[in-house]
Amino acid sequence: MHQVLIVGGGFAGLNAAKALGNKKGIQVTLIDRRNHHLFQPLLYQVAMAGLSPAEIAAPIRNILAGYRNVRVLQEEATGIDLQKNRLLTNNGELSYDSLLIACGAEDTYFGHNNWEEHAPGLKSIEQATEIRRRVLTAFETAERCSDREEQKKLLTFVVIGGGPTGVELAGAIGEMSRFTLAREFRNIDPTLTRVLLVEAGATILPTFSEKLRRRAMRDLERLGVQVWTSSRVSNVDALGVNIGGERICTRTVLWAAGIRAARFGDKLDTEKDNMGRLKVNGDLSLPGSPNVFVAGDQALSLREDGSALPGVAPVAFQQGTFVGKTILRDLKGKPRADFSYWDKGQMATIGKSRAIVETNSLKLSGFFAWVAWLLVHIYYLTGFKNRFFVTLQWAWSYLTYRRGARLIVNKEWRTCQDETRE
Amino acid sequence: MHQVLIVGGGFAGLNAAKALGNKKGIQVTLIDRRNHHLFQPLLYQVAMAGLSPAEIAAPIRNILAGYRNVRVLQEEATGIDLQKNRLLTNNGELSYDSLLIACGAEDTYFGHNNWEEHAPGLKSIEQATEIRRRVLTAFETAERCSDREEQKKLLTFVVIGGGPTGVELAGAIGEMSRFTLAREFRNIDPTLTRVLLVEAGATILPTFSEKLRRRAMRDLERLGVQVWTSSRVSNVDALGVNIGGERICTRTVLWAAGIRAARFGDKLDTEKDNMGRLKVNGDLSLPGSPNVFVAGDQALSLREDGSALPGVAPVAFQQGTFVGKTILRDLKGKPRADFSYWDKGQMATIGKSRAIVETNSLKLSGFFAWVAWLLVHIYYLTGFKNRFFVTLQWAWSYLTYRRGARLIVNKEWRTCQDETRE
Repeated sequence: MHQVLIVGGGFAGLNAAKALGNKKGIQVTLIDRRNHHLFQPLLYQVAMAGLSPAEIAAPIRNILAGYRNVRVLQEEATGIDLQKNRLLTNNGELSYDSLLIACGAEDTYFGHNNWEEHAPGLKSIEQATEIRRRVLTAFETAERCSDREEQKKLLTFVVIGGGPTGVELAGAIGEMSRFTLAREFRNIDPTLTRVLLVEAGATILPTFSEKLRRRAMRDLERLGVQVWTSSRVSNVDALGVNIGGERICTRTVLWAAGIRAARFGDKLDTEKDNMGRLKVNGDLSLPGSPNVFVAGDQALSLREDGSALPGVAPVAFQQGTFVGKTILRDLKGKPRADFSYWDKGQMATIGKSRAIVETNSLKLSGFFAWVAWLLVHIYYLTGFKNRFFVTLQWAWSYLTYRRGARLIVNKEWRTCQDETRE
Repeated sequence: MHQVLIVGGGFAGLNAAKALGNKKGIQVTLIDRRNHHLFQPLLYQVAMAGLSPAEIAAPIRNILAGYRNVRVLQEEATGIDLQKNRLLTNNGELSYDSLLIACGAEDTYFGHNNWEEHAPGLKSIEQATEIRRRVLTAFETAERCSDREEQKKLLTFVVIGGGPTGVELAGAIGEMSRFTLAREFRNIDPTLTRVLLVEAGATILPTFSEKLRRRAMRDLERLGVQVWTSSRVSNVDALGVNIGGERICTRTVLWAAGIRAARFGDKLDTEKDNMGRLKVNGDLSLPGSPNVFVAGDQALSLREDGSALPGVAPVAFQQGTFVGKTILRDLKGKPRADFSYWDKGQMATIGKSRAIVETNSLKLSGFFAWVAWLLVHIYYLTGFKNRFFVTLQWAWSYLTYRRGARLIVNKEWRTCQDETRE
């Protein structure tokens, strides 16, 4: 039996496992420190109370239950021995014949780790519910507040980072304050909410064409989002943000400014770029270790022109399948091919019912772009159940402007602590 | 303007607010330390991964948005001055002309508060997701465990308390292990899971007739639940439970054995029973304070025969409406009436597709009882949206035996802590 070990149950790991599923002579072990696969492109919807966590996440073992040669273990990789073909985990060690490293990406604060406390990023369910808690709590606190100055600070939201995630977060806050919450408060006017989208670079959504970028800017402004480009954040603390020489007083800051490859890769003594991504060969194998592959956000995979592939879901998706197929080819003695990315285009959504979509041959914006965005995301949602329910949930909130998951959930579940306090 | 202050957004508080909503001359303030109303009868479904939190909870201000004379504040009551008609909160103080205290109930460990850490109760969303995390993690840990003895302990679940909540939890664990998880593990056989339902009294579900109790016992045993009655728990720790002279080694203990009235009531210098419930007059007012009412789980309200009304949703529901109407009658100068409970019966569900239902004239069990249970719970779910989605979710899991919300979610959202550790 050829032992394949996959680290990470994201798009890359899951697709590799599927490609190898129920294939003879192969035993697959997939490990992940979480029990669930997360559909990250929709995570901002959880942060903005539009969807419940379970609607964009599913247990990895459930997704792969049909493949009898695949076992799933909830373990965390802690080290690797490339010579002995062994992976160390928090539960012992696992040996492999072929290994796929696909641990994804995490937030980076460019050396300012103390900012994280005040500006949560958006990579996990826990972070998304934390953002939801903060945004909703800001409105609740403003409602019971009698100090107008403090109210203004509570109703100021700063989103740092003008990529698709930052644009989606800022647009959703703008929309929520203007439509969803409008009728429910007595002491504040949620439509006076100020949302600031701050980008250090010269433009938001830099990978899109200029025409679509301008359209996105206009759509954001219509939702009350002020876009500040060429604005570098120099400090984040509990009371606000410093941008250039200016101080913005706010109680809620969200971070969408930087990601880097998962830190597990740092344990490998191999070439990396400044984002911690592992440099790989054309066949996605690690230089010097042909039986070790890297895929998804953790890989520095280059196009023919020498530019790096972007850290987006379709790249991880296609790379995972490619690695699975490469292992099958190896076993049949066929020569390896190089990975080549089929770029189907890119999209970003701005609030409800507006988006921008760009492919080689097509540029779309507005409502039809949003419908395209919707269809693509529903199609790719893993597992029929989620697809079905998310569609309904969206249809519902589209018709009613409601948000279905506006819960403020605390971190602590125990209550007896109160008893001892008294 | 007559100022009505309601403490607590449960069934009682919400129904009182609705009864007073959009009535002339009345201003209502409802405070709750949470932003959401929780449909507690279905909370066990969240703990057992059948429903998402948002499907059984909705923002209080959203439910009451249509009543322009009602404002909702997320504040916690901390004290009360009955002489000056003032309520103290964590945000200052609020004055009232009429007050309704309806803070509900919380778990009690009968003086063993240190048990809570090892045996979470089921009163809040946080507790439900904590139980979900523990139960699902036990299966994950057993899957990666090579020690058969440890595996056996991991696959032993103890539910303490044989009331409806304990029966529902135990039945759901039995069912999940036998059906939902059966095909997804490679190293363990989830159908060998041992579920123990422990009750100190002589029987489970003591409020039901003997015939239905026996039926429930049989239904539980069919799901692999062992029912231990007349069994008093003498200790709970991280490694197991002591029952009588016996020691059960287990990694997962759930608490459904005791509740008491919310502790806010302790601040009132008035008569209480041993569960901390405040004794009230026939019109639900506090003795000596005709403008202060108590309703729901926090009230000790007596039937004509002197027995106490049970702490169930319909009582709170009817009492809330009654208090609202009483305040309206007061303002019109009409005399007060006494509250009388219209008992529509009781029900409990055992796993999927089985339940017991008992009214004055009717005793149902099995599938038809379950359908009745389903219809009643869907009908009472607050807000059309939840009703609609929960129905669909149930239809789905009924047809597929899947559970839609099997997420293990951690308590901590920060990731940079790992960075500093390394």
